[in-house]
Amino acid sequence: MLLEAVYHRPKMNWAYAYDDYTLHLRLRAKKGDMTEVHAWVGDKYAWDQTEELVPMKLVLSDKRFDYWECEVQPPFRRLKYGFLLQNGHESVWMTENDFHDERPGKPDRLFDFPFINPVDVFRTPAWVRDAVFYQIFPERFANGDPNNDPEDVQPWGGKPEADNYFGGDLQGVIDHLDHLSELGITAIYFTPVFAAATNHKYDTEDYRKIDPHFGDGEKLKELVQLCHDRGIRVLLDAVFNHAGRTFAPFVDVLEKGEQSKYKNWFHIHEFPLTDKDGRPNYDTFSFEPHMPKLNTENPEVKEYLLGTAEYWIREIGIDGWRLDIANEVDHHFWREFRSRVKAINPDAYILGEIWHEASPWLQGDQFDAVMNYPFTDAVLDFVARGTLNASELANAIQMQLSRYPRQASEVLFNLLDSHDTPRLLTLCEGSKDKMKLAAVIQFTYSGTPCIYYGDEYGLDGGADPDCRKCMPWEPEQQDQELFAFYKTLIALRKAHPALRTGSIHFKETGGEGTLLAYERRLNRDRVLVLINKADQAQAFQLPKRTGRSLEAGKCSAPPSAAACWRTLFASGSVQLQEENGQEMVRLPAFGFAVLGPAKED
Amino acid sequence: MLLEAVYHRPKMNWAYAYDDYTLHLRLRAKKGDMTEVHAWVGDKYAWDQTEELVPMKLVLSDKRFDYWECEVQPPFRRLKYGFLLQNGHESVWMTENDFHDERPGKPDRLFDFPFINPVDVFRTPAWVRDAVFYQIFPERFANGDPNNDPEDVQPWGGKPEADNYFGGDLQGVIDHLDHLSELGITAIYFTPVFAAATNHKYDTEDYRKIDPHFGDGEKLKELVQLCHDRGIRVLLDAVFNHAGRTFAPFVDVLEKGEQSKYKNWFHIHEFPLTDKDGRPNYDTFSFEPHMPKLNTENPEVKEYLLGTAEYWIREIGIDGWRLDIANEVDHHFWREFRSRVKAINPDAYILGEIWHEASPWLQGDQFDAVMNYPFTDAVLDFVARGTLNASELANAIQMQLSRYPRQASEVLFNLLDSHDTPRLLTLCEGSKDKMKLAAVIQFTYSGTPCIYYGDEYGLDGGADPDCRKCMPWEPEQQDQELFAFYKTLIALRKAHPALRTGSIHFKETGGEGTLLAYERRLNRDRVLVLINKADQAQAFQLPKRTGRSLEAGKCSAPPSAAACWRTLFASGSVQLQEENGQEMVRLPAFGFAVLGPAKED
Repeated sequence: MLLEAVYHRPKMNWAYAYDDYTLHLRLRAKKGDMTEVHAWVGDKYAWDQTEELVPMKLVLSDKRFDYWECEVQPPFRRLKYGFLLQNGHESVWMTENDFHDERPGKPDRLFDFPFINPVDVFRTPAWVRDAVFYQIFPERFANGDPNNDPEDVQPWGGKPEADNYFGGDLQGVIDHLDHLSELGITAIYFTPVFAAATNHKYDTEDYRKIDPHFGDGEKLKELVQLCHDRGIRVLLDAVFNHAGRTFAPFVDVLEKGEQSKYKNWFHIHEFPLTDKDGRPNYDTFSFEPHMPKLNTENPEVKEYLLGTAEYWIREIGIDGWRLDIANEVDHHFWREFRSRVKAINPDAYILGEIWHEASPWLQGDQFDAVMNYPFTDAVLDFVARGTLNASELANAIQMQLSRYPRQASEVLFNLLDSHDTPRLLTLCEGSKDKMKLAAVIQFTYSGTPCIYYGDEYGLDGGADPDCRKCMPWEPEQQDQELFAFYKTLIALRKAHPALRTGSIHFKETGGEGTLLAYERRLNRDRVLVLINKADQAQAFQLPKRTGRSLEAGKCSAPPSAAACWRTLFASGSVQLQEENGQEMVRLPAFGFAVLGPAKED
Repeated sequence: MLLEAVYHRPKMNWAYAYDDYTLHLRLRAKKGDMTEVHAWVGDKYAWDQTEELVPMKLVLSDKRFDYWECEVQPPFRRLKYGFLLQNGHESVWMTENDFHDERPGKPDRLFDFPFINPVDVFRTPAWVRDAVFYQIFPERFANGDPNNDPEDVQPWGGKPEADNYFGGDLQGVIDHLDHLSELGITAIYFTPVFAAATNHKYDTEDYRKIDPHFGDGEKLKELVQLCHDRGIRVLLDAVFNHAGRTFAPFVDVLEKGEQSKYKNWFHIHEFPLTDKDGRPNYDTFSFEPHMPKLNTENPEVKEYLLGTAEYWIREIGIDGWRLDIANEVDHHFWREFRSRVKAINPDAYILGEIWHEASPWLQGDQFDAVMNYPFTDAVLDFVARGTLNASELANAIQMQLSRYPRQASEVLFNLLDSHDTPRLLTLCEGSKDKMKLAAVIQFTYSGTPCIYYGDEYGLDGGADPDCRKCMPWEPEQQDQELFAFYKTLIALRKAHPALRTGSIHFKETGGEGTLLAYERRLNRDRVLVLINKADQAQAFQLPKRTGRSLEAGKCSAPPSAAACWRTLFASGSVQLQEENGQEMVRLPAFGFAVLGPAKED
């Protein structure tokens, strides 16, 4: 056994409470290196009466490692534990600081999960696991009220520039809620709607006021109420890392310099404020002089921003916050943010924008989830860029899953594009087929999928500002076939809980690595997802189902695999057939198939 | 290179702010596997203009791994980074999720330390690095006021039982402060002094009242003032995990059951409260029915306990808190504890009782340090139990150092015994020589050493209650030679900053593993510590000093090693001599030597 590869640490993703009574223990080992792993557990104050060996399951694998996991419900909410690692006859006992050939006599140097205190248990909102999100960039979704248009508004559908306007507003969203309902959307994430000087509104002027070009507080209230009536939740964008050039406290500092009572609201290195060689002498987002970084350690700033977070939940009833540039704001601020937001709405979804591994924010005290860009990268590397093959994609996804507690992975925000990236269709170089493959992966994976407005109609666009085109409302500009595809995909996800919260099991597919296959399992339910990203047809050998139908005797024994599976959704005609004595499913070029149990009961 | 052994994660001990401007990056690799490691760093918003390769140093090694570290001061307080791993001509680039043979073209998938927010920087009190602690169990230190003795007080020096009393009190401590000053003590840790029903007082009856057998608030104030006048700080013991059987709210619950307004102050599974088969039907410390676990999530309990923590700092001016069973109390409670305690006294020392790896509490938001029992184990395994040899001890200590941010390691509470363990002399089976070796390691290591009252006079004792004997105040019961030893050791530590905050470098000593040697370095200062734990004399080959004296030309070139070192403190006569052409230092059986530069300037 390669002991250098074995990893376990207290808490984090390695030992955490999943609920008030249940601990998950995880251990990393070199891939293929162990045949059995047990957790050796007991109560620290009654070890001899309680110690036992609990088998761990190999739940995830990536390029180099296997991840073993087990669930334990310690009767007194505290757990002392070690591990027994086995490879055939070889066995090693792992304690907190060492490995031993023999079972240690005394348990005092084992690992310790001291006590499951309920307040420390990481709870994420259950509704998010089942949600289907839709991201709206309000300036470009729909112009429902020409009276609030900016002065220099451009004709709808023109070329987006960094600083032009097309008049999108909240009324426009209200006008098109039927579109979202028809698609099957259950939650909207709005990029910022507060008063600001730009079209993207990431430079807030007033955190308590809706941008007048979008509407007002009453209009937002109406919109949220109408959404709630349809079972659609609403997430707003909190830009708390920095304010905008026109934010009154910053204007005051610009005007009064050191005399300003707001000078400690920002991080100012010297007065007067200037911008030398493109580098402001105060901290900003990036080096943007019009986005001064807020001093979130200042109690006044903290109170203003946390009060803002509470205000919109209380006043309007929004269902959570997406947090812009969340990782550049201090942890203390986010801890207080969580406790105040959850105090008003325990079901609020707190979603951080972090493009990197986000463990430090996903321990239960800060965010529920993050925008899952590592997932985006992996899927697009496989489908669009071709830099990952199927098993590498499987590795990347499983590595991600290994890093967070399960309750975080269950509500990760899985996006394929956004206002910050080129559009999915463009990333796929215009190939609708590839775009669909990416979407199939997205919608058959755990976490919550999000569609960036317009993708469902085939909207394209390169990097910002091109990815912020106007939503096409003229039927002739809408790709109805793509719309139908998304609609079916969403319905499929809703119909199959295994696609939302089932475990994931990648299958060996061999060949060129262009055939991806995985099963999602929840209790005795099974869904099999097949993706062929090659430009030619490929066949996949169908596994025999060992799930419910078989056990219930609904398939003859030995059952025909084909008899146990049926196609739930597929590109083109997918045939379950026998080839050379093997039961195969043949997928067309760039084809996919989602298979479910032949018979539902 | 064994890539399975390479480890880095965001934040934690792997990437942390040491101060407002400085980041430490650490990377783990297989021992001996790399010849050079660089951090590849830059600003994420100006990568091309700022990227550079920063050499990392191999700072620690344990049994299987090397730990490479570097310090970076990112000009904009944010750092994007990867690593370049090299073994001779072989090189690998490490990004957040992968390894690459070629330097990646784009930096977007590197690691990210998003921003150094000052409030998140882990600050530990500087005075602790230089402190010498002394632990007092008040019931057994000295009886200064017979008027407050318990009714059934036993004659001083009798056999300690679980439930007998000898009359020790605060006046007794006041009476013997000269003893502590003479020894050189600069801080006292008192086990609990609050009203309680037992001799150890870990079953608090009243958190705001000094136990009447010990004195009163005025007496504690006098004691703390007298200590401060002598430059001695005072730490009290906060037993916040559980209260005592006689704690008024618990008495109320026992009496009124479900009608008690305090029923939510505890974790009660059913009424009435009982204790079936030794297992109470309410949560307790261990299974002790007279130590009911406090519900620290209840805002009333929280306010009462946090108010208590503030009260004794404000009223009496104590210098910090030792937190009993700290890991069984929730993290939310400790975060608020830290922020409220540090708000009153930013220099307060917050010391958690955790016997295991304590990373989850040592990230800057909870404790400053923990009682370093893994250090205790390692030293005693080497010196007393003989289960570790010298290089295994070195490994164990370096593994510990790798796990925490440096600012935590600098103030770890290094004890060799306590009221919860047998006494050091007894652990050493009565061997004063071995006891001294352990103490030399303790006092020449970073963190703060603590002497358990009486050890300096040769007090012995097995496990609790035997380790809680009365302090011997009759001169004929005092081991003056041992006292002189501790006095010299403390003076030595005080005289040499390298012993307190220097880096540590273990030396190869070969042989049977009974000779331990390490150097402490601070700037250009060097101290060499040699420990011979064999029962026969052993010689150690003296390294040539490359430090200050040599550079300053004070030793002839090539210098004689012996000419550059002098003995600062040693057991018996230590000779620096030439043997077979090698410059050697010969240590007697169970001998030690602490060597310093031959000439101070």
